[in-house]
Amino acid sequence: MTPEVVSFRAGRLTVLDQTRLPHEECLVELADLEQVERAIRTLVVRGAPLIGVTAAFGVCVSLGGQPARPAALDYAPEVFARLRASRPTAINLFWALERMERVVEALPDSGWREALEREAQAIFRETVEQDEALAAHGAPLLESGARVITHCNTGPLATGGRGTALGVLIGAHNAHGNLHVYVDETRPRWQGAHLTTWELAKAGVPHTLIADSAAAFLMQRGGVHSVWVGADRIAANGDTANKIGTYSLALAASHHGVPFYVVAPTSTVDLALSEGSAIPIEERAPEEVTAPEGRPLAPEGTTVWNPAFDVTPAALVSAIVTEQGVIRGPRYDLRKSFGAARVLAGTATK
Amino acid sequence: MTPEVVSFRAGRLTVLDQTRLPHEECLVELADLEQVERAIRTLVVRGAPLIGVTAAFGVCVSLGGQPARPAALDYAPEVFARLRASRPTAINLFWALERMERVVEALPDSGWREALEREAQAIFRETVEQDEALAAHGAPLLESGARVITHCNTGPLATGGRGTALGVLIGAHNAHGNLHVYVDETRPRWQGAHLTTWELAKAGVPHTLIADSAAAFLMQRGGVHSVWVGADRIAANGDTANKIGTYSLALAASHHGVPFYVVAPTSTVDLALSEGSAIPIEERAPEEVTAPEGRPLAPEGTTVWNPAFDVTPAALVSAIVTEQGVIRGPRYDLRKSFGAARVLAGTATK
Repeated sequence: MTPEVVSFRAGRLTVLDQTRLPHEECLVELADLEQVERAIRTLVVRGAPLIGVTAAFGVCVSLGGQPARPAALDYAPEVFARLRASRPTAINLFWALERMERVVEALPDSGWREALEREAQAIFRETVEQDEALAAHGAPLLESGARVITHCNTGPLATGGRGTALGVLIGAHNAHGNLHVYVDETRPRWQGAHLTTWELAKAGVPHTLIADSAAAFLMQRGGVHSVWVGADRIAANGDTANKIGTYSLALAASHHGVPFYVVAPTSTVDLALSEGSAIPIEERAPEEVTAPEGRPLAPEGTTVWNPAFDVTPAALVSAIVTEQGVIRGPRYDLRKSFGAARVLAGTATK
Repeated sequence: MTPEVVSFRAGRLTVLDQTRLPHEECLVELADLEQVERAIRTLVVRGAPLIGVTAAFGVCVSLGGQPARPAALDYAPEVFARLRASRPTAINLFWALERMERVVEALPDSGWREALEREAQAIFRETVEQDEALAAHGAPLLESGARVITHCNTGPLATGGRGTALGVLIGAHNAHGNLHVYVDETRPRWQGAHLTTWELAKAGVPHTLIADSAAAFLMQRGGVHSVWVGADRIAANGDTANKIGTYSLALAASHHGVPFYVVAPTSTVDLALSEGSAIPIEERAPEEVTAPEGRPLAPEGTTVWNPAFDVTPAALVSAIVTEQGVIRGPRYDLRKSFGAARVLAGTATK
């Protein structure tokens, strides 16, 4: 049984510490702003949708911990500013915080803690429901017996629900059977090696772990039917920011005529950005590269470039699977596809 | 100062233990066949040309350790068979052993140990000289201020001389100055992270370490002028087997219009193979992927595919730099280019 990835009950926010998987399944409580911030920054929780959910609950914990409404309102700007600064690329973080901010702007005098929790739980519930829809829309793209490649982690650990890309794969395996998933280890933080393998093993889906750099050769050898990834931010033209290595994988898929699918809820789409080059790309500590698992590999003082994400041009994306359906590429106009829906989602939450 | 990568003096074979770099510079003696075999298999020595040199000296150690010529001749078939089986992909191993075998076939009665050593030292000397020629032929392909990417390790540690691809880069930096080398960490054995960075630091060449999967994104961001790799075996049509990840890098280079250069002595060319699909690809232990640096990352029992090499189609190779000159692609006919020269080299060593 998989432990709960995130929960918020009786004012207490608990998350599964993903940095300790697959060897230990530890639930940790995030009791204040600093703990929430650090959990997001250090990848105790990660995955674009889960970052959004955790940040929303983080607002509840941070503001709810104040003695009264005026103190909470005073504290709010700092809470939002610090959570916004915790990670720069995944748009879901900003999207969730914006929704929470709207609630704070109209915070009722009585029941204000409940109002905050109501919105955060709604964000969580919608995320879980969207995952169901993603799985349903994505499944027809997979045939029984398909051999697929995936990158990073996009399963339950990435959302708190079924997951995005991995949710589609696990769902399709359970429905038609016979899937085989090749899992990129996903340097530098190994989300494939220590999270995706763990989830696939729990779900009973046959899988094989490979070095990221072996994926292209696997496609050359033949027998790969499709590639499935999530997203951290999708620009209006379909350019997709996702874990570093996604672009390399997309180039190889394109070269081999292997369909390349991005699976993400519409909360990952950033209609304000016309194209991917405008997406801010987080650069993380050099030690993630020089000292994997804390063991120094490279000579001391080695200079490193460690972007956590890259941008895959829309032209390499065969289709984007959202909770609203499948949009086929290679040309996308997501303002047209989602403009109205996003406004609707925005107003519906008020 | 760089310690000697390999030496054979007074019948004793000493190598630098590359598995302990960059933290420790340990010289170890390989005193018999088993130690030579294990050193090659476990990457204490690696790099296609150096494997050839070490195997040649390994024959001297193994046969020279026998009390007399008849015992040496009796032992020879086992020595050659076991060294041939130590690693399957780098052709230089087979090439060096073939040369040693020809000496054994005509082993003189007196001075037989010296005859063996003479050939092994010739192989070593030629390897070192070839590196000089590689550096000279490759340098004009680099302009001052060039920013380049390299994969795996192809410096002095890979040959015992100046190196192949990295020898070109270090030479060009010393000549024109101003090179900047991006070093792929090179999963799963990290030759980039722990060997190439160490060599570039010693040589005073500015460099930046990146995850393998970041190379394509680096090219997308612009400013990469060329990509430089070595080779473990090149088929007659120019298809090139090299460290896993080379193919992925070549695809990205091709997509971005970045020249992709292979640097290797002609001893790496296997004219017997028409194309790369016939090159045997070594698959190594799953633990290299599941437990990097000996620390288990993936759940126990995770299935792994761990090819040590991949094959880059000749069409993606802009030029092959050999000690005989630069051959421009994308179409190669190496039987025509080298057929005569190879026969010449073969007879010249008799």
